[in-house]
Amino acid sequence: MAEEKRKKLSMVVFSGDLDKLFAAFSIATGAAASNMDVTMFFTFWGLRALKKKASTGKSLFGRMLGLMYGGDINRATPSKMSFGGIGRWMFKKMMKAKNVPSLLELRKTAIDLGVKLYGCQMSMDVMEIPKEKMIDEVTECVGVVFFIEQAQQSDVTLFI
Amino acid sequence: MAEEKRKKLSMVVFSGDLDKLFAAFSIATGAAASNMDVTMFFTFWGLRALKKKASTGKSLFGRMLGLMYGGDINRATPSKMSFGGIGRWMFKKMMKAKNVPSLLELRKTAIDLGVKLYGCQMSMDVMEIPKEKMIDEVTECVGVVFFIEQAQQSDVTLFI
Amino acid sequence: MAEEKRKKLSMVVFSGDLDKLFAAFSIATGAAASNMDVTMFFTFWGLRALKKKASTGKSLFGRMLGLMYGGDINRATPSKMSFGGIGRWMFKKMMKAKNVPSLLELRKTAIDLGVKLYGCQMSMDVMEIPKEKMIDEVTECVGVVFFIEQAQQSDVTLFI
Repeated sequence: MAEEKRKKLSMVVFSGDLDKLFAAFSIATGAAASNMDVTMFFTFWGLRALKKKASTGKSLFGRMLGLMYGGDINRATPSKMSFGGIGRWMFKKMMKAKNVPSLLELRKTAIDLGVKLYGCQMSMDVMEIPKEKMIDEVTECVGVVFFIEQAQQSDVTLFI
Repeated sequence: MAEEKRKKLSMVVFSGDLDKLFAAFSIATGAAASNMDVTMFFTFWGLRALKKKASTGKSLFGRMLGLMYGGDINRATPSKMSFGGIGRWMFKKMMKAKNVPSLLELRKTAIDLGVKLYGCQMSMDVMEIPKEKMIDEVTECVGVVFFIEQAQQSDVTLFI
Repeated sequence: MAEEKRKKLSMVVFSGDLDKLFAAFSIATGAAASNMDVTMFFTFWGLRALKKKASTGKSLFGRMLGLMYGGDINRATPSKMSFGGIGRWMFKKMMKAKNVPSLLELRKTAIDLGVKLYGCQMSMDVMEIPKEKMIDEVTECVGVVFFIEQAQQSDVTLFI
């Protein structure tokens, strides 16, 4: 008896901006709740969404990068209206007032719904983020070809 | 006799930048003119493309948001070279010199070609934009699961 | 005997930021190496990735645009941490330290692997970039409907 194949969504999460991460996890949890297989491939700035806490590598460049764009998922700021931190504070305040889940809660929901989280190994090397600095729920650290394979089998593909 | 199924394109319009909105509506009208079904799902900053005129909510946060990023489709600035408004002025000037339609004209064409425009209800709640502030041509205000359903049936999916 | 159809990837490259161009070419070369047909459609700021060297048009607007956002692929800066050029310098330094290929090398690899590079004719008109200013490997300068046709036949579509 033919069983319907589950639909699949794959996304590259390139951005580390609070609002874009929020959109990425909203789409991912919505898709997983709609019974889709969901793959999130985090690269470049998006890696912050998988980090345990603020820290980059020990080299000069790693430390400069940390100073300029350090921080884990809780330190993400919106792509607009930063104004020295007020943007993040305001954004979170508004979200809460409207009973919208936080980014941390959304990520937790995604994981509970079986969304697969992959880190881009090359970006991790360049940004000097070792695997130990990532949350335990990261499925695997992989290369771009892995994403391509996932995307080929997907019904929906997005770059965020 | 088998009739060929119309191809479908679904996009999330997250950005409210003039140049990205321009790209989004260009792709949408191009696809609709090529006989595709087109769904645009406007969320976060992208909602400005559906607003009647500059205005956000009445709460402190709504008003701050308005100050920092208010405005309707005519107030959109390019993602680069803002320089206090000169970017928008220059961009429009160049477009006009090359006989490129304005964003307003493009949106009108999209609507005339049957492109469906959806507002993200959650973003509207958070940003305190009531349905009355949106243009009448908005098809419906919906949640992320609605977008997922559309995207699953689509041949082309984009996040802009 | 049925031969399996090659899978196809089409992307719009809208951004001219170093990090996003890097992501775009990484995905493109990864896909081409995985035996996919790859189409890259460069528009707006993304056009810089196809330019021979820094130059825009001769009109006042063309020259202003050149001043504000001129430069070829080597002048691209990351979307974050520009700080007057230090971002680009640091980014390249780190890439090199990790033996990551440069953007120029990645583009060369993409071309060698048969990735098709298209320029958006309308953006070229608006930004006053004549065909002669583009690298010889540009396959063709086309309109948005060409991209739509490619995307319709694609298994993976991305907007970067």
